[in-house]
Amino acid sequence: MNIGLVGLGKMGFNLGLNLLKHEHTVFATDVNEEATSKFKDAGGNSFGTLEELVAAMPKPRIIWLMVPAGDITKTTIEQLKGLLEAGDILIDGGNSHYKEAMRISEELKQSGIFFMDCGTSGGTSGALEGACMMIGGEEEAFQTIQPIIKDICVEDGYLYAGKSGSGHFLKMIHNGIEYGMMQAIAEGFEVLEKSPFDYDYENVAKMWNHGSVIRSWLMELTQNAFSKDPKLDQLKGIMHSSGEGKWTVETALELQAPVPVTSLALMMRYRSLEEDTFTGKVVAALRNEFGGHAVEKK
Amino acid sequence: MNIGLVGLGKMGFNLGLNLLKHEHTVFATDVNEEATSKFKDAGGNSFGTLEELVAAMPKPRIIWLMVPAGDITKTTIEQLKGLLEAGDILIDGGNSHYKEAMRISEELKQSGIFFMDCGTSGGTSGALEGACMMIGGEEEAFQTIQPIIKDICVEDGYLYAGKSGSGHFLKMIHNGIEYGMMQAIAEGFEVLEKSPFDYDYENVAKMWNHGSVIRSWLMELTQNAFSKDPKLDQLKGIMHSSGEGKWTVETALELQAPVPVTSLALMMRYRSLEEDTFTGKVVAALRNEFGGHAVEKK
Amino acid sequence: MNIGLVGLGKMGFNLGLNLLKHEHTVFATDVNEEATSKFKDAGGNSFGTLEELVAAMPKPRIIWLMVPAGDITKTTIEQLKGLLEAGDILIDGGNSHYKEAMRISEELKQSGIFFMDCGTSGGTSGALEGACMMIGGEEEAFQTIQPIIKDICVEDGYLYAGKSGSGHFLKMIHNGIEYGMMQAIAEGFEVLEKSPFDYDYENVAKMWNHGSVIRSWLMELTQNAFSKDPKLDQLKGIMHSSGEGKWTVETALELQAPVPVTSLALMMRYRSLEEDTFTGKVVAALRNEFGGHAVEKK
Amino acid sequence: MNIGLVGLGKMGFNLGLNLLKHEHTVFATDVNEEATSKFKDAGGNSFGTLEELVAAMPKPRIIWLMVPAGDITKTTIEQLKGLLEAGDILIDGGNSHYKEAMRISEELKQSGIFFMDCGTSGGTSGALEGACMMIGGEEEAFQTIQPIIKDICVEDGYLYAGKSGSGHFLKMIHNGIEYGMMQAIAEGFEVLEKSPFDYDYENVAKMWNHGSVIRSWLMELTQNAFSKDPKLDQLKGIMHSSGEGKWTVETALELQAPVPVTSLALMMRYRSLEEDTFTGKVVAALRNEFGGHAVEKK
Repeated sequence: MNIGLVGLGKMGFNLGLNLLKHEHTVFATDVNEEATSKFKDAGGNSFGTLEELVAAMPKPRIIWLMVPAGDITKTTIEQLKGLLEAGDILIDGGNSHYKEAMRISEELKQSGIFFMDCGTSGGTSGALEGACMMIGGEEEAFQTIQPIIKDICVEDGYLYAGKSGSGHFLKMIHNGIEYGMMQAIAEGFEVLEKSPFDYDYENVAKMWNHGSVIRSWLMELTQNAFSKDPKLDQLKGIMHSSGEGKWTVETALELQAPVPVTSLALMMRYRSLEEDTFTGKVVAALRNEFGGHAVEKK
Repeated sequence: MNIGLVGLGKMGFNLGLNLLKHEHTVFATDVNEEATSKFKDAGGNSFGTLEELVAAMPKPRIIWLMVPAGDITKTTIEQLKGLLEAGDILIDGGNSHYKEAMRISEELKQSGIFFMDCGTSGGTSGALEGACMMIGGEEEAFQTIQPIIKDICVEDGYLYAGKSGSGHFLKMIHNGIEYGMMQAIAEGFEVLEKSPFDYDYENVAKMWNHGSVIRSWLMELTQNAFSKDPKLDQLKGIMHSSGEGKWTVETALELQAPVPVTSLALMMRYRSLEEDTFTGKVVAALRNEFGGHAVEKK
Repeated sequence: MNIGLVGLGKMGFNLGLNLLKHEHTVFATDVNEEATSKFKDAGGNSFGTLEELVAAMPKPRIIWLMVPAGDITKTTIEQLKGLLEAGDILIDGGNSHYKEAMRISEELKQSGIFFMDCGTSGGTSGALEGACMMIGGEEEAFQTIQPIIKDICVEDGYLYAGKSGSGHFLKMIHNGIEYGMMQAIAEGFEVLEKSPFDYDYENVAKMWNHGSVIRSWLMELTQNAFSKDPKLDQLKGIMHSSGEGKWTVETALELQAPVPVTSLALMMRYRSLEEDTFTGKVVAALRNEFGGHAVEKK
Repeated sequence: MNIGLVGLGKMGFNLGLNLLKHEHTVFATDVNEEATSKFKDAGGNSFGTLEELVAAMPKPRIIWLMVPAGDITKTTIEQLKGLLEAGDILIDGGNSHYKEAMRISEELKQSGIFFMDCGTSGGTSGALEGACMMIGGEEEAFQTIQPIIKDICVEDGYLYAGKSGSGHFLKMIHNGIEYGMMQAIAEGFEVLEKSPFDYDYENVAKMWNHGSVIRSWLMELTQNAFSKDPKLDQLKGIMHSSGEGKWTVETALELQAPVPVTSLALMMRYRSLEEDTFTGKVVAALRNEFGGHAVEKK
């Protein structure tokens, strides 16, 4: 099938290759000329602008957005809104907020354009070799794009989740679970590291990946990481986050759903961004005030 | 090889079948006569008492304990202490505390008996078809039992972890991670359940098991559970716990390792055991005191 | 001084009496006629409508809003916007969101109206006998209202906090701290209740209020609560919440400030609203899947 | 009355002065000769050894232990056990574990010696000017010491809590609550510090101490701390802990009481002791593995 691909970053480029491998015709663009040129070399059709890309595609068009969530996604959709026509399908494959998907789909529906919110999991390797996708939007449009989805996902690795927003919502929750699982694994190794024993972490992770209750892809990645750097000595323990964990907690608060593990996984990430905390200073000062406990001064 | 098996419960019985399948000679006993008789039917040698079992085995003996952790394990080891001889190997395959393993191995070493602490993961199906084991104790003794371990575990599914205690310690941490992962997964579905969307949870779990970052055996079990009861309507949300999660948190406290996710996973289990809480009553009473906020009376 | 008072609920009525006690002239209104009539009996001037109230007041007017945060506050401000004139001062004494205060103050500034965001603490008794107030907005307007504020607060019990929003922000944080403190106190009594000892909780709280590190108004209220119901047997442990705790956590997430205690205090409130949880069902189902652990059925 | 005082550290010395002020005869000792000599100057009787102290006291003796919990307390009690006689009363005023108090009281009861476990709150200033005490042990012995307790505590600031252990248990819980309250206050200021506003923290704390719901001694200490160092710029945010918070969480785990806020307050203290965490490294490595997210290297 013909598919437009907007965004050739880490995820988008691999997804493009994946599409080409399954013999789809890909019409791609990116602000980064090196990426578009490289994608052309790989067998894709590359365009310098959105306008050119849209003009080149046969109708009805299917356009896949794979650009960073937030302002760039917003701006790009705004632009595409002026270029697409009734019957076209626009898929947002990034980590956009589900409420934004609900808003945009409503807006595009006015022009007869279908908007699909598609959460993509599996990392960069999954994008290339078989991703996992959760898709919301009009079921009619889903039927149209399903053959593509099926090709680029691993077997059984996609789900039509329901009305607009349900795909991004599911991806958000997926990431919330991911935060909790990662922190759970990491806390386990934290205690091992402080234990009186002398473990080989790569072998521990490898063994846990074979037959244990906690075997998982994340544990496989843990094994990989330790195989490269046995004690992770080269790393700083700074845990960045990209937004979906925060959205999960915010959404849980809104829905009055208690998510202690998810929220703590997130907060420990924030804590890791700071060398010292004001919280700690206040508590240290209080201990000094009432008990004369020594404080450590700078 | 010849192996004594003490305990034919859910785990022990399956482990026994697993050993038989790999053509080991199993000398088994259990207080439950039905189990011993059933095990005999399956091809094992069953004995009414520990004394008979030990007497029947060629030396040096390898005895595998698969009885409930705590008093029963303690009493059984006490009994075996009087029956075993220098050169024998006693393996504790239950969820005993690692400090107990360290104490007992030291004690048995006085009589020349090797004590191995072996954490077993993989659940009852793993015990039967291929378990995951983490083993601590004298390396010399490990070499002796390794062929058995290899047979009953999945490929790459075992690890000699180091000195006495290191096996049970690793199993304890494994369970701590398990608590966190399970709570993370469950919190995700909690938010889905309160969401404005209408998900088919079995399909969600299935899709997440194919290509997503959070694919894992626990997610597969989640899929199984939803396949039997789509909304888990038949269950009460009471989360029991068997001790290792608590030990993980206690150990973390002792080692001053922050484990917020693990500890919250545990505490939410305790919370689930209560219909109402004194904590809640105190907070409700306080809100009423300062703000005149209505309290709900019984 | 002359002061308009919009809202004669639990807080507003007491604040009105407090103002009258300090010989201010109060122009009050409320949708509840019983309240307005009762306030008239107490020496205030009561009006049936906002229009009448505003018309009756000498200029420049000072109007104190003491209506529920959210839509009612919004609508009332919208109405007053059409009635007030340049130089008038409008004070929002409710628990509105600080961003709303920032937005509204900007809007009213266009018409020369001063908008002050005033967080009020101390509960209903404080409103009557001496409140605690934290005020944001133009300093010039604060100078005008300061004599009133000083009268109705306890000595040293008010603070000009800075620009618009800073008063409500401070009140939000105050409530966040309150959530944490209440949960901390309640958890203490939770453990006492499960302890092997037999404490008289009223006496415990009373003793802790005399000389201990944790003496506090909340502990005094704890003492009061236990004096009325020694084991809180008459209460259900359902902990409602009114929004500021949630805003505190949301704001912390936005600012990437780790607030584990505040967020857990909030989440335990949400947990208390549920008799059973989906989280619990998922975990119970998983334990059954891998370990054959019994589940409790309905 | 006559009272023996063992330990003239920060707390013990002040308690000694407090006793002298109330015209009790104090027989004191400490390993630190400077302290004993200083206490003699203050009007007390000082002794070089426990033996001399015990020998000098009229019978039945009342001995107050105010030495660090743990080994020193244990050793001192062991020594005193050999010196005291039936009818004597030994009071442990330190932060010992309640189970230790239960064990020792049982042991000393064999020799007819009364052992009282007395938790002391109020900090060093309280020890001098009026403490808060919670006392467990035989009621008969409590009656004997009550006049002393009454003198050195603030009015209403002591409680006979019940059988042996109940005093130290109550003190343990008191400290658990204290941890939660301190962390709650500190998190509030953490968010203020990251807020878009510019608060004077001393004034904020001062205002909150006058009429607000969160007024408390800890908030007064917060005010003091900020009065000395407005932004706590001179401090490192390292939060040490002395054991009772840990015991509270351990006890809660044993009693299956969920104490999320108390445990998180403790864990954030442990977190503050580390510049970087292994947890953080594992999570950072995992993010890099699946998403190609950049890690920060040393």
